Amino acid sequence: MVKIAQLGAGRMGSIHAVNAAANPRLDLAFIVDPNAPAAEALAAQVGARVSSLEAILADSEVAGVVIASPTAVHLEEALACLAEGKTVFCEKPLDLDPGRLQAAEASLTAPGARLFVAFNRRFDPHFRRLWERLRAGEIGALETLHIISHDPSPPPPAFIPTSGGLFKDFTIHDFDTALWLMSEEVSEVFVFAACLVEPAIGEAGDVDTAKVLLRSPTGRLAVISNTRRSGYGYDQRIEAFGERGRLAVNNPRVSAVELWDQSGALLAPIEPGFASRYAMAYRAEMDHFADLIEGRCAPQTGYVETLAALTLAEAAALSANTGAPVRL
Amino acid sequence: MVKIAQLGAGRMGSIHAVNAAANPRLDLAFIVDPNAPAAEALAAQVGARVSSLEAILADSEVAGVVIASPTAVHLEEALACLAEGKTVFCEKPLDLDPGRLQAAEASLTAPGARLFVAFNRRFDPHFRRLWERLRAGEIGALETLHIISHDPSPPPPAFIPTSGGLFKDFTIHDFDTALWLMSEEVSEVFVFAACLVEPAIGEAGDVDTAKVLLRSPTGRLAVISNTRRSGYGYDQRIEAFGERGRLAVNNPRVSAVELWDQSGALLAPIEPGFASRYAMAYRAEMDHFADLIEGRCAPQTGYVETLAALTLAEAAALSANTGAPVRL
Amino acid sequence: MVKIAQLGAGRMGSIHAVNAAANPRLDLAFIVDPNAPAAEALAAQVGARVSSLEAILADSEVAGVVIASPTAVHLEEALACLAEGKTVFCEKPLDLDPGRLQAAEASLTAPGARLFVAFNRRFDPHFRRLWERLRAGEIGALETLHIISHDPSPPPPAFIPTSGGLFKDFTIHDFDTALWLMSEEVSEVFVFAACLVEPAIGEAGDVDTAKVLLRSPTGRLAVISNTRRSGYGYDQRIEAFGERGRLAVNNPRVSAVELWDQSGALLAPIEPGFASRYAMAYRAEMDHFADLIEGRCAPQTGYVETLAALTLAEAAALSANTGAPVRL
Amino acid sequence: MVKIAQLGAGRMGSIHAVNAAANPRLDLAFIVDPNAPAAEALAAQVGARVSSLEAILADSEVAGVVIASPTAVHLEEALACLAEGKTVFCEKPLDLDPGRLQAAEASLTAPGARLFVAFNRRFDPHFRRLWERLRAGEIGALETLHIISHDPSPPPPAFIPTSGGLFKDFTIHDFDTALWLMSEEVSEVFVFAACLVEPAIGEAGDVDTAKVLLRSPTGRLAVISNTRRSGYGYDQRIEAFGERGRLAVNNPRVSAVELWDQSGALLAPIEPGFASRYAMAYRAEMDHFADLIEGRCAPQTGYVETLAALTLAEAAALSANTGAPVRL
Repeated sequence: MVKIAQLGAGRMGSIHAVNAAANPRLDLAFIVDPNAPAAEALAAQVGARVSSLEAILADSEVAGVVIASPTAVHLEEALACLAEGKTVFCEKPLDLDPGRLQAAEASLTAPGARLFVAFNRRFDPHFRRLWERLRAGEIGALETLHIISHDPSPPPPAFIPTSGGLFKDFTIHDFDTALWLMSEEVSEVFVFAACLVEPAIGEAGDVDTAKVLLRSPTGRLAVISNTRRSGYGYDQRIEAFGERGRLAVNNPRVSAVELWDQSGALLAPIEPGFASRYAMAYRAEMDHFADLIEGRCAPQTGYVETLAALTLAEAAALSANTGAPVRL
Repeated sequence: MVKIAQLGAGRMGSIHAVNAAANPRLDLAFIVDPNAPAAEALAAQVGARVSSLEAILADSEVAGVVIASPTAVHLEEALACLAEGKTVFCEKPLDLDPGRLQAAEASLTAPGARLFVAFNRRFDPHFRRLWERLRAGEIGALETLHIISHDPSPPPPAFIPTSGGLFKDFTIHDFDTALWLMSEEVSEVFVFAACLVEPAIGEAGDVDTAKVLLRSPTGRLAVISNTRRSGYGYDQRIEAFGERGRLAVNNPRVSAVELWDQSGALLAPIEPGFASRYAMAYRAEMDHFADLIEGRCAPQTGYVETLAALTLAEAAALSANTGAPVRL
Repeated sequence: MVKIAQLGAGRMGSIHAVNAAANPRLDLAFIVDPNAPAAEALAAQVGARVSSLEAILADSEVAGVVIASPTAVHLEEALACLAEGKTVFCEKPLDLDPGRLQAAEASLTAPGARLFVAFNRRFDPHFRRLWERLRAGEIGALETLHIISHDPSPPPPAFIPTSGGLFKDFTIHDFDTALWLMSEEVSEVFVFAACLVEPAIGEAGDVDTAKVLLRSPTGRLAVISNTRRSGYGYDQRIEAFGERGRLAVNNPRVSAVELWDQSGALLAPIEPGFASRYAMAYRAEMDHFADLIEGRCAPQTGYVETLAALTLAEAAALSANTGAPVRL
Repeated sequence: MVKIAQLGAGRMGSIHAVNAAANPRLDLAFIVDPNAPAAEALAAQVGARVSSLEAILADSEVAGVVIASPTAVHLEEALACLAEGKTVFCEKPLDLDPGRLQAAEASLTAPGARLFVAFNRRFDPHFRRLWERLRAGEIGALETLHIISHDPSPPPPAFIPTSGGLFKDFTIHDFDTALWLMSEEVSEVFVFAACLVEPAIGEAGDVDTAKVLLRSPTGRLAVISNTRRSGYGYDQRIEAFGERGRLAVNNPRVSAVELWDQSGALLAPIEPGFASRYAMAYRAEMDHFADLIEGRCAPQTGYVETLAALTLAEAAALSANTGAPVRL
């Protein structure tokens, strides 16, 4: 077991800490959070101790650091950890500003810098199986792609100003998924967006509903559908259309129980949110982190993938604002 | 087009007359029913004239007769029509008494006697496709069979005493289906039955719920599940289990619309009753009747199949009454 | 029964003539087609006689005319029939040129002119049920709409130059569906299109794959996905997203049989093409035509709906060509 | 955390030990198995030490014992552990002989004896949800029950003679499920069984295929379907039929990926075996064990449930042998 530490004891921090503690290859020794009660509660829950960033950086036994702190400090913390030779698991986004990322490129991509930016869709076993079967040629060449990513209910309005906006906060996952499945760059982006769900989101200058079109250099097309409120759970679907057919991932349901009565057949709801829908993905991320620390592989998603997705998010925001397509 | 007549203008008579009138090979010329208003209404609906059994028997232009009158006169009418050389389409059951059937065997099976007893399940395109795929060996040798046949709601109590009881009235279809799909005789029958749905059915000496086990000489096993009231529509399913897998027919739904909301995913109900569920089967029966009149084929189900299903119905009733298995 | 005639004995003509002949309220008396053998064969099949446009126009007993001739003569024939006071059922499109339609507006919309332009999606019972449930408020206010309309295989290349292009020939249905379901105009259109399926289509100056975005004045968004070749059948789905959930129409399957084996659960294919998928819609169209002739209702889709859909098709083609959104 | 030990390091032992080690309330300190390499390997895997039954019995810090040893020693080990006041988690069956169980009844049910016999179906979240919804009255009064329990492939022939036969080894789960869901005793059992799958099973005097009927005192009926080889995975379904509808549990699938091509829509296979299908149930069992040790509840399944299921298994075997129903 290798000793690791975690920065951040919030919502994502809880998920990652529990998974790290349960991972047989990792010893989650330290939790860091400026919110002392949160840090202590999480540390107690997972059998770790509260510590500080400085102490962790100085502790040569700490081989890896999970960064689950607020977005604003992700990049700075990642750079500090990488500078001490620690393997970094950084919750997405690494940063909201592509310019700042590019300014740090040398450090983030230096030989020996092991930086994993966690895009959970790639670690979901259903999506990964679709990706494998696509690559195995089950439907011939991929032509077009539909990604539906609908949140169950809008975030608190106070979150919006710090979120980076719909495209950097939420669609960013779908941009990464599209790039991953298309195995190709995106050359053009167009967006129709609106505020249909929550007026406070519009008042904060953001949108809550979007349909995004992507085009690749070879002519592949992708559609991304987003909403901040579905009314029926956390809808996460992919349809890939190819020469010889269609590969799709449907939503897992919370239960295999169904009720048939006069009104029809009522299947159980889909998963209510990301924590349950991507529970397996988060565990797989932690396993990938253990692999990275042990030197078994390179990060599946790091600086390059982060910058690519962020670039699409900026292009999407620009298209939504200007009403025109954006060529990359 | 060949001229045909129909005896009976009740519920099944309406279905058959409309299908006969729409069949491009059949000219439904006459409707016969002692209930004059019913006969006239149906004749008007399908462009036929009201007539009498005697006139029809005497009319050499009438090549075929559809018998959809009350069960009690089926056999007698069928014999009269066959005696005049007419092709007969007899709604099931041909008779409720196997002894009377056997007494008429010579006439019913005489060379040149064309008697089709309509068992609708064999003409349903879904069940027929299952039968074809079973015979094509898609799951290897058939081992066991589950038939679910649940009525949406119980018949009027007044019908029970004339029905022949659950096994002759309702399960008879499932016995025929089992014999058809197993391609083998049945050597043993056992039944658990109960009156759980409608006390008036019990008071009339009948049961409304049954689980029937069948065993074939080679050891194949079948289960039939019946109820007179499902609470969720007309449930008609088959599962066939073989060496290499499972072939099944699920219930078609009344619509392809589905609603997803907080409570789950609500699919449309299954078909509400036999008239809609077996609409295609009834049309296919009429086509088969046209084939028979034109001499293109032999009846798919006639005396032999009727007697076999009826024998199982009697065995089932005996098992339910005695509590013991019945060997055949 | 009212006497009607049909112009055109081709592929769509066959479908409509059979339905007209089977409709109890219509007497399909005449078939007209310059291709004499085709006219005679169809007339024989449906019990009609071959005639000429002139004779039909002059025959005051002919109350209605079904126009299923080549697109190029639709408008001219419709005008001639309307001028004689006949009720017109015109297979879509009425014309490929909005200018020509507008030039004929006075005649097409004159008081007493009964012109039904057959957009089949509105008569499909599944889509209609979705529309009804949407209007009944089952998911609250409609926000966005996804329409998937994928052809099983591309048309013969020779058809492309006369087709009007993908948007006027194929997407036209989806534009009408979107307008119908959104109950609102479209204010902006954007398209990504490509030729990914059949190079001959590209050589003829057309596209075979498209993703279309629509925006309404109130901010509703719609996505239409088209391809000329799915590899898995005729994919016709709708998803409507609203405040409180999702209403969707899935593809009916050709059979309710399923096979479970080592490779998984194989459900039957979806419908192979429009003739089977929309068989019920075509019958419902003919029923609507009978209603029109009998004066029971106004046409559900006529000049206004035709022009609206055609305008979107032109806007889509313009967007595809210019790469810019088109405002209406 | 409370200290526990486990007897048995075989197939089920591996599952339970991993779950015990991952349970935050349990400290799995000792593994006992006469097969020393197996004991050591498992102990190493879960961070425990190898010990002996004697040492464990003598160690007052060991509050609970998981018994996952061969069936033949279950009862004896359970009695020894209970005698020392330890809470016992015994993998099913507690014993194959109802007489021996009854002889030990006083010890097994003594005040203070905490004996949990692990019937995994009751701990599956899907089945439990069905049970809850049944009790909540969603379909009114329960009338009949269908349980399908089909193994993917037969056990090694060498296992058969020690298994107790199909009914005690495999159907025992379904008997317990039926008793649990019906909330009622069973008054009569009838079985059709056969050896259709694996001749070696028949040569060992056992059957591999069975259809079992159960009847309760109030007339409720249940059907259990078993086979030792499905050809399509581990089929574990329940259908409950009531006054107002049907509640069912379908098989979860190994993935949410589906492929649509010319042959249809291929859904992913169902779970391949009990270890993956009941993974959540085994974890829930361990949680229940922790609850028991902490005194938070009584065992959900103990001596009474074990004896009831075993009695049905013996009745089923008797019915299969005699060909007659068995009344209880």
